[in-house]
Formats: sequence, structure tokens, C-alpha cells
Amino acid sequence: MEVLQAAVDREAAGHRVVHMEVGQPGAPAPRPVLEAARRALEDGRFGYTEALGARRLRERIARHYGDSYGIDVPHTRIAVTTGSSAGFNLAFLAAFDVGDRIGLAMPGYPAYRNLLGALGLEVANIGTSAESGYVVTPEMLIAAHGESPLKGLLIASPANPTGTVMQPEALGALIETAEDLGIRFISDEIYHGLVYQGRAETALKYSPHAIVINSFSKYYCMTGWRIGWMVLPEELVRPIERIAQNLYISAPDISQRAAIAAFDATEELETVKAGYAASRNLLLDRLPAIGFGDFYPVDGAFYVYVSVRGFSNDSVDFTRRMLTDAGVAATPGPDFDTERGHAWMRLSFAGTEADMCEAVERLGNWLA
Amino acid sequence: MEVLQAAVDREAAGHRVVHMEVGQPGAPAPRPVLEAARRALEDGRFGYTEALGARRLRERIARHYGDSYGIDVPHTRIAVTTGSSAGFNLAFLAAFDVGDRIGLAMPGYPAYRNLLGALGLEVANIGTSAESGYVVTPEMLIAAHGESPLKGLLIASPANPTGTVMQPEALGALIETAEDLGIRFISDEIYHGLVYQGRAETALKYSPHAIVINSFSKYYCMTGWRIGWMVLPEELVRPIERIAQNLYISAPDISQRAAIAAFDATEELETVKAGYAASRNLLLDRLPAIGFGDFYPVDGAFYVYVSVRGFSNDSVDFTRRMLTDAGVAATPGPDFDTERGHAWMRLSFAGTEADMCEAVERLGNWLA
Repeated sequence: MEVLQAAVDREAAGHRVVHMEVGQPGAPAPRPVLEAARRALEDGRFGYTEALGARRLRERIARHYGDSYGIDVPHTRIAVTTGSSAGFNLAFLAAFDVGDRIGLAMPGYPAYRNLLGALGLEVANIGTSAESGYVVTPEMLIAAHGESPLKGLLIASPANPTGTVMQPEALGALIETAEDLGIRFISDEIYHGLVYQGRAETALKYSPHAIVINSFSKYYCMTGWRIGWMVLPEELVRPIERIAQNLYISAPDISQRAAIAAFDATEELETVKAGYAASRNLLLDRLPAIGFGDFYPVDGAFYVYVSVRGFSNDSVDFTRRMLTDAGVAATPGPDFDTERGHAWMRLSFAGTEADMCEAVERLGNWLA
Repeated sequence: MEVLQAAVDREAAGHRVVHMEVGQPGAPAPRPVLEAARRALEDGRFGYTEALGARRLRERIARHYGDSYGIDVPHTRIAVTTGSSAGFNLAFLAAFDVGDRIGLAMPGYPAYRNLLGALGLEVANIGTSAESGYVVTPEMLIAAHGESPLKGLLIASPANPTGTVMQPEALGALIETAEDLGIRFISDEIYHGLVYQGRAETALKYSPHAIVINSFSKYYCMTGWRIGWMVLPEELVRPIERIAQNLYISAPDISQRAAIAAFDATEELETVKAGYAASRNLLLDRLPAIGFGDFYPVDGAFYVYVSVRGFSNDSVDFTRRMLTDAGVAATPGPDFDTERGHAWMRLSFAGTEADMCEAVERLGNWLA
């Protein structure tokens, strides 16, 4: 967010900035969503809904699991949340006690560790790298659990910032190992739908005890609406309903009514995704030529996590200069990886293809 | 919420129910708010805003403190939140550590104590009654602090469920005592604007260290939009910005853009308030005649907290029968007061005047 502020400040001062620091789609919400919001506004009455969300939306989300994954989930296991941020908070509060140790892949999304810290939970970083195909393996989990027992494991696939997707059999094996060890599995599936290579399976396929967290922010282009959902194990439905009631009352009513229509916007959303895919191809094709040849696999999401080692061993300083001298904003690696992040940065390709093209040119000229 | 569910179930079964259990305005958001939301939808792009809220809204809220209270507050001290629910969560996380003891008035809003419990904080209940004019006094605070030291004190004025308003000098004296004892004062001002008797002053008038929590839900009729704000002491701005970033990212963009217009809807909102005032007069006039003569002073908000002792010593059972036999839904007292609530219930007059009139008739007939 400080990068974003610096970028905004530069723009305010009249400079051109290409935004590769933001983790949100450049496209607005799809037309059916905007239309549903408009219709809801005609009525004008927005109140609290049930704590776990309006029944119609919960039913629609449940149907999505049948349509997209061939999995039968009752709507009673769906909790509508105020973005996935609320989903993580609710999962952590309901499933863990102060002092519990939770495994996270590193590099990973920084809000996880910050949120766990704020709630008095301990983070066990599990480093991923080329040797493990950039994913957490059962062996790595067993090793981390051996050092000091884990109560939970949170895995994002596709992952932020790496774009790594766990293939179905790898996900299944990891969940099985976690549950054998008594470790609660939390599956961050907020980038589902944005997969370019391989296939992302839902954790529901492998366990009724996994907590699944999803969102309308990414594939459905609804970041600013603050709306997401969880699929809960039966035993956590009532505890999470109670906590949600006290912590959030309910997710925004207008966003709930609009989000129902998001599942009917596939054509429009696939067009947006095709734009990401084109940007991804452009970056994977051209980044090596300008000196950024070392990156995690970009199987999904809209990020390239790239090494800056050829130019600098201090990516905070590097991205600062990149913004000032090349007019390209990116997020420095220490946000995602406290140990090795100094040599990495995250480039988001959620913007337009034209912007991505311009960014590569600007970077190429600057580095040359 | 279980009362609400039972009421909804009865309605679904074809029975008439008058809703006096809900804590939200019957009126929709005012026209300028709906118009601003409509305009924002034309653009269609809703993204994350700054974690503390869009600058324009923060500036508009800051101006409100000049206009309504004659107090100069810089916009940098305003944090826009996802409803006051987020405000309380942020205040508790930023100001206190696990195990800290926080004073609450009893009867009081149940989400306070539930939220404090979820965060590992301890609740010190401070009972209010007729003897203290239904408010927490400096003497009561000193006594509670003497039993076991308090780190915080949270006071709502107007209060839920009692409607009690602390008069300015009483509020000032309580804040002074709290700060002398090293107790952080949190002022719940979400019912400001809805005062029928006396005057509600903001805690900002008495201390730059108080945390003020407010909301667009009540006076501004925007419950379902999930939008509120805090006024922060300088020393908590940065800590709360960090936590908000990780826990919420930002409040809903559309709600932020719509809420700016709420301050330009005074005429419409005062008409809504006049409706509450008429309902309040009706209830205060007619409740004693049907056997409900013992209630807290309804200085503000839209609740009457009334004793059912003349009929029952079990208000959970009483409100259940009242719903089934008289078709009037209310909230039983144990939600608000774990010690004495069994003899009390909360009636909300946020609905229409016609509904309130019907409720009194139904109750009168039933009790006769």
C-alpha cells in the first residue's frame, strides 16, 4: 500500500505511472452484476441480512459447486462474507486458539501473517522453491509439524504472489497428510477461475473438514464490493455464524444482491481472463530478454513473482528506483517473503494489455 | 437474531408479525445517497480504496464535526470503517492486549462482550439502574477499577438497549476520571442524531485520546451498506491503518461514494426522526396503561427497555409467547443484561408509527 501511495503521489505530480503493484482487476464488475445492483437501488431498501448471507445468494453459490466442480454442497454450508478478508478472520477465530501454530507457504500473501499475528496465533513459514515445484509438499508439512506441532495449514492455489497452482493429486495428498496429523486445512481459492496452466481443484473434493475461502473480487472483478464466501465444515457452521453476527452483522446487502448475477456473466468474464492470458504470454515471452529470467511458474492468478538478483539484492530500493526512473510500480518481495524477498518483486498483470506492453518497454529501456 | 428467525418463520407460515425486535430503521437510505450510488454505478468501477477510506469521504466527515459539534478535526484522524462493527474490532485490537479488562455498561449491546471475548479480552460489567440515573458514573468506574484494574471503558450514548443519553457534563466527568486512571475511553456515538431529550455531546470535546465510533447505519438509515467511521487519537492512526489494511483492505467503495451524500439529506432524515419521535411519544404514553410502566429513560436511539416483571420473571419465555400469541416480536433482556435481563425486554420503535400503534393494541388485548 505504501508503493501504491508513492505511485499515486507521482501521478498527482504529473508523471506517467504504469501500475503493476495493484492486486485488483482493471475491469469493472460484469454487466449483469451492475444491472442487478441498479435494480436493487430502485427498491432502495438495504438492511442487514442473515449473518451467513442471504439465502438466495447462498443457494446460488452452492449451485456453482455443482456446475463448476461437480460437487454437491448444501447451501447451509455456505457463508457469505465481507470479502475473503472476513473469511480468513472468521476461519482463524473459529478454528484456532491463541498460541496455536499455523503453517503458511512462503512466499505468500502478507495479510495472512499479519492477521494471524494480530489474533495471537503463531506463523510457521514453509519455504517453497524450485526444488519442490514451488509448492508445499507432504514431506515439508511433516518436517514443519515435527519442529513444533501445527494446528492449521493455509494454502492458496493459485497462489499470491507466485501464481503457482497445486495440481489436483498434489492438493489431495497434502490435505490427506494434514488431516492425518490433526492439522486443519484452510484452502484459499480466491484465484480460482484464473488458471492458465493445469487445473485448480477445490479442497472440498478431498475433505469435508477443510475450510474453503473464496471471493468475488478476482475472477468476478468485484474487489470494491467487498464480497466473498466460505464453504464450511458442518461442525464450524454454527460457531462461525455466531462470530460473524458479532464481528460483521452481515456482508453488504447491495453487494450480495449484485453478486448473484456474477455467475451469469461467464462470457464477459472469460473475455477479461483472455486479456490476462495475453498479458501473461507477453510477460513470459519478453521478461527474460530484459534480464528477468527467474520467476515462479505463472499457472494462475495475475502475478509474476520475479527475481531482481541480476540487478540488485535490495528489491525495496530497486522497486523505488523503478517507480521513479522507469515509471513502473511493483511490489517488493519482502512483503511476501521475509527471508528471501529482498531479491524478488511481484509484477501484477491485472491491468490492460497495452499497459503491460508499455511496462516491458519502459523496463527494458531503463535496464539497458 | 433467533427472535428474528422465529418471527420470519411465523410470517412465512402466514401469520401477521409486528417487528419490534430489529435494530434498524424501516426507512431506506435518503434520496441523495441513492442518487450518489446510482451515479457511481454508471461508472461501474469499484476498487479498493485507501485502508482508512477515500479522502473525499474522510474530509466530508471531518467537516461534519465542525458543522454539528463546532469541533475542528483533521481528516487524517478519520477512519472510514465497514460499519461500526469494524470500528469496535479495530479499536479493541489496536488499544488492548490479550487479557486486558474493559468496562461495559450493563444492560448493553451484546456484540461488545461477544467480540471482546473472541479477542481474548475480559469484560467488567458495570450495572446501571435508576439510582445512578441509568448511567455509569465516575464513582462506579472507580469502584470497578478498584476491584481489578481496567484498561478500557466503552460507553454508548445514546445507549442500546436503554436509550439513555449521558448529558454533556456527565460524559466529560466520566472521561476525565477514566483518563486520570489510565483507562482508554471508547465512545460509541452510533445513535447520535437520534436524541429526543437532552443533548448528546461527542467525546472529542473532552479528550484527544478518546476513540470515537460512529456509523451511517442509524440516523442516516444505511444499515445494509455496512459503512461507518471512527475518529482516532493521533497515536492510533497508524496502528489502526495497518490493522485495517490486513483485516478489511477497505470499506465497500460504493457505500463510501454514496455516504458522502448522507450529510446533505438532513431534511429527509429529520422527517424520519420525527416519525421515531411520534412513536416514542405513543409508547411512553400508552405502555404504562397496559402494564409496562417500568422502563429506562428513552432519551435517544429507537428502543424502549421495559420491565416485564408484572407478567413474568422469564423474558425469554415471555417474548416467545408474545410472538406466538400477540404477533409482536421483541428481544428478551438476557441478550443485554446477563444478571437482571430475565425481567426485561427491548422494544424497537424503528418501524412505522402505524406498526407501533398496532403493536400496543395487540399487546394490550393479549395482556388483558
